[in-house]
Amino acid sequence: MKKYRVLIDCPDEKGLVYKISSIFFKYDLNILSNSEFVDAQKNLFFMRSVVEGYIDGNDLERDLRSVLPNRATLRIIAPVKKSIVLMATKESHALGDLLIRYEAGELDADILGVVSNYDYLRPLVEKFDIPFFTVSHEGLSREEHEEKVMACLANFGKLDYIVLAKYMRILTPKFVEAYANCIINIHHSFLPAFIGANPYKQAYERGVKIIGATAHFVNNDLDEGPIIAQDVKHVDHAYNWQAMQRLGRDIEKIVLSRAVKLALEDRIFVYGNKTVIF
Amino acid sequence: MKKYRVLIDCPDEKGLVYKISSIFFKYDLNILSNSEFVDAQKNLFFMRSVVEGYIDGNDLERDLRSVLPNRATLRIIAPVKKSIVLMATKESHALGDLLIRYEAGELDADILGVVSNYDYLRPLVEKFDIPFFTVSHEGLSREEHEEKVMACLANFGKLDYIVLAKYMRILTPKFVEAYANCIINIHHSFLPAFIGANPYKQAYERGVKIIGATAHFVNNDLDEGPIIAQDVKHVDHAYNWQAMQRLGRDIEKIVLSRAVKLALEDRIFVYGNKTVIF
Amino acid sequence: MKKYRVLIDCPDEKGLVYKISSIFFKYDLNILSNSEFVDAQKNLFFMRSVVEGYIDGNDLERDLRSVLPNRATLRIIAPVKKSIVLMATKESHALGDLLIRYEAGELDADILGVVSNYDYLRPLVEKFDIPFFTVSHEGLSREEHEEKVMACLANFGKLDYIVLAKYMRILTPKFVEAYANCIINIHHSFLPAFIGANPYKQAYERGVKIIGATAHFVNNDLDEGPIIAQDVKHVDHAYNWQAMQRLGRDIEKIVLSRAVKLALEDRIFVYGNKTVIF
Amino acid sequence: MKKYRVLIDCPDEKGLVYKISSIFFKYDLNILSNSEFVDAQKNLFFMRSVVEGYIDGNDLERDLRSVLPNRATLRIIAPVKKSIVLMATKESHALGDLLIRYEAGELDADILGVVSNYDYLRPLVEKFDIPFFTVSHEGLSREEHEEKVMACLANFGKLDYIVLAKYMRILTPKFVEAYANCIINIHHSFLPAFIGANPYKQAYERGVKIIGATAHFVNNDLDEGPIIAQDVKHVDHAYNWQAMQRLGRDIEKIVLSRAVKLALEDRIFVYGNKTVIF
Repeated sequence: MKKYRVLIDCPDEKGLVYKISSIFFKYDLNILSNSEFVDAQKNLFFMRSVVEGYIDGNDLERDLRSVLPNRATLRIIAPVKKSIVLMATKESHALGDLLIRYEAGELDADILGVVSNYDYLRPLVEKFDIPFFTVSHEGLSREEHEEKVMACLANFGKLDYIVLAKYMRILTPKFVEAYANCIINIHHSFLPAFIGANPYKQAYERGVKIIGATAHFVNNDLDEGPIIAQDVKHVDHAYNWQAMQRLGRDIEKIVLSRAVKLALEDRIFVYGNKTVIF
Repeated sequence: MKKYRVLIDCPDEKGLVYKISSIFFKYDLNILSNSEFVDAQKNLFFMRSVVEGYIDGNDLERDLRSVLPNRATLRIIAPVKKSIVLMATKESHALGDLLIRYEAGELDADILGVVSNYDYLRPLVEKFDIPFFTVSHEGLSREEHEEKVMACLANFGKLDYIVLAKYMRILTPKFVEAYANCIINIHHSFLPAFIGANPYKQAYERGVKIIGATAHFVNNDLDEGPIIAQDVKHVDHAYNWQAMQRLGRDIEKIVLSRAVKLALEDRIFVYGNKTVIF
Repeated sequence: MKKYRVLIDCPDEKGLVYKISSIFFKYDLNILSNSEFVDAQKNLFFMRSVVEGYIDGNDLERDLRSVLPNRATLRIIAPVKKSIVLMATKESHALGDLLIRYEAGELDADILGVVSNYDYLRPLVEKFDIPFFTVSHEGLSREEHEEKVMACLANFGKLDYIVLAKYMRILTPKFVEAYANCIINIHHSFLPAFIGANPYKQAYERGVKIIGATAHFVNNDLDEGPIIAQDVKHVDHAYNWQAMQRLGRDIEKIVLSRAVKLALEDRIFVYGNKTVIF
Repeated sequence: MKKYRVLIDCPDEKGLVYKISSIFFKYDLNILSNSEFVDAQKNLFFMRSVVEGYIDGNDLERDLRSVLPNRATLRIIAPVKKSIVLMATKESHALGDLLIRYEAGELDADILGVVSNYDYLRPLVEKFDIPFFTVSHEGLSREEHEEKVMACLANFGKLDYIVLAKYMRILTPKFVEAYANCIINIHHSFLPAFIGANPYKQAYERGVKIIGATAHFVNNDLDEGPIIAQDVKHVDHAYNWQAMQRLGRDIEKIVLSRAVKLALEDRIFVYGNKTVIF
């Protein structure tokens, strides 16, 4: 018996569930879980099924294609470990959270390495026998630095996701395009509030009573990509921005790890600047 | 075009989605929304679809029955206003919240009346031109009082739901059985913590840092019925039990109103002592 | 025995607590509660005490002034009902929540009236025997309309607070200055995200996973005043903006009512664009 | 300049704040922060001040004692690193969270060692150069095992706190008394709901819509000690108990780490079965 995740998104039309489920039925598949969503405004259909049976994924794909609209996106994924690389700068909380989960076997992924613009986190990462690569930005233009980073990343071969676990450098459009919808970032605010640098300072200055963190895919506009997960905590006047930052780190790491797990389980559809998450 | 809510629960078996959706397809129905859940442990299948088309509900029911397991529960509901009665004692927050929503047309229901064991809330209820019935428990045994309440309720004819909006009397098994899965209660604690009387006092004595409220269907065991909705708020040592109660009322009323709306929209399946909510 | 709320804010200096408490001791006062906060960055001291004893408030004020820095703000408040006016437009949830609390005696205030630019909410308000004033904006410039509103408000005499319970008109600087730090507004987003019109639509378009509401004092910059209270709820892709709005209303009304109660209990200090809340 | 944390709890009486602050004033101390709470029901006064100045702690203590009631508890603490030992069984999330914080210098403590009844977590702990001690319970009675554990703990010398980071063994009264109010445990439920073994299974069976975790001091009654911190997350019918457990771990580790930090900063007063936390 093999297990497959079947992800379909396409323009909505009558009979889609019937047609898709008829193929599952034809192959005598168990449907372990099934989630659907129709965006009525944009007339889009999203479906994620986990099915199990004695089949060949290619046959299933061919038959599903035959009943789906031409413009349908169809992904049939036999669950295997994804290949990911983490990037970080100096703070260890988000990176450390992922490392502890990794060590516990909680992430369905191979962490091929950690890339940083400082050497600071090397001791932590190497404890976990994960290769650590320092690509210093000292004395380099943004473009020069990124070229070196991309060269470093190229050595890993095919990557499913690059996880920015508090990587505090702005990425160029060139970089982002090279890894479209594969870069997951944690922003330390409840986006779209406090875009840009030092959001806790911004939050403190504004006098908010709640702080948050946002995990999102990175696209060309800084802090503007599709949101995957968000969470918040209450604060009061007694929190200066450093206290907000300390509390915020607990939100950041949990939200980022949740987003990474959703990605590893193929639960995220990106459309426009939004996500559907099953 | 008519709209129907189709609710199915039955033992899970292969091909259910296919068979059900084939009937929808045969009748040329639009599926406006579709939710499924399989309880793998108990091998139970739950499905709620909202469909739209030019059909007769009876035909649809007959054809769906023909493809469903014998023991399936099938409900095909053409959305109409439900008939509900509210019961309360002295506190106005939960009752008032429902009345304001009712006045705003937010509840898909007719409130046929409010029944109370005191006259205290009559002025509030009559502002909204809703009949108010006082059935005093003074000098009566629990059974005698309930008999009078049931007589009062009988006058309303068929009721879809009885909503206990802080009705502070314990109900007998006889009463509960007469309205099985039709009585929605709000309990002022995060169940199963603090079952029974004065949960805020219990919570205060225990020194909890979070208080909550629970909306649930009422069954024979006090405060033990299937949970529909829960929510909580943080407290600290500065809250005495009265302050917990004041804060708690804000949770209670929102949670109860949410549960009532879920019930009115036929989004709740009860199975065993649990709920599936789509 | 009389009870007083003593609120002090001033530049911080050594010995303030000692000097203030020595006056309380001299008058043989019970301190029922005592809260202090020092903003170390701005060197500001905030204190709110509730004291009880056989004294004259004027004597207490004179003696406290004698030990406080010159620039200190000192308020000694014998708790009496505040005078408030509510303003609203068409939606009844926030207004209704305040009315139900008012009816239950939960607000330490007299609601002198409700002012609206439509007649829509008159039936609801008049149920509670509260005067309702429609000041239509039809055919009027913003300035003309506001002049009429201000004339209407002037009739109430001294007002402690004007509560904008979903009053959907932008106020001019002239209006805001006339009632500085006396206007409490509920904004239907987690400020500073989604400033301006239709925040739920903005939130939907941005694809956020959390929505919120913010109660704040109104100053000249739209949606930019000192924040009093905020709260949030989680949403997912299945929420269109109308569903966000429906859910959001439950946040709005609770947050606004909480802010109003904090104001009525003299628990809020405003400084710069922020609040200290005890 | 030296910094001290001054913690006072005693029966409430008039003039306490005045008397205490007069001593602070006499020593020309800066009050960096000041928190007070009066439990009016039990007539108890709690105060935590952080003061700074050129003084000797012993002098301050003598003078403060001279103005406090006889039965007052007074602690004057010059902030130094506390000595703590962690205990765990097989799960790494709570332990790992503390280790990552420790490595980042976030905990004001020395972790002297980790004690476990299995060898399972040794590789993780030794990565961080922290001594790991396995005290197997195999073939031993509860009393025999605990004697060995206590012998192991005795080797560390004076301990400020023992942190049970998912140590899945029940402790005897003898053990608990030996470390009264020094043992911090994380219980994987929203106490007092689901006391005892397998709370996620209990929560799943009960069909709750929210799960939680509770950090508390351990006393003789299992899961009944004074609560330090709690937090919760929403779940729905789609969560089986294993999914609840996975989600719950994220709550557990954050709540435990928060409780440990509160303890290390001397922010917790225990009285009766409750806590005051400043």
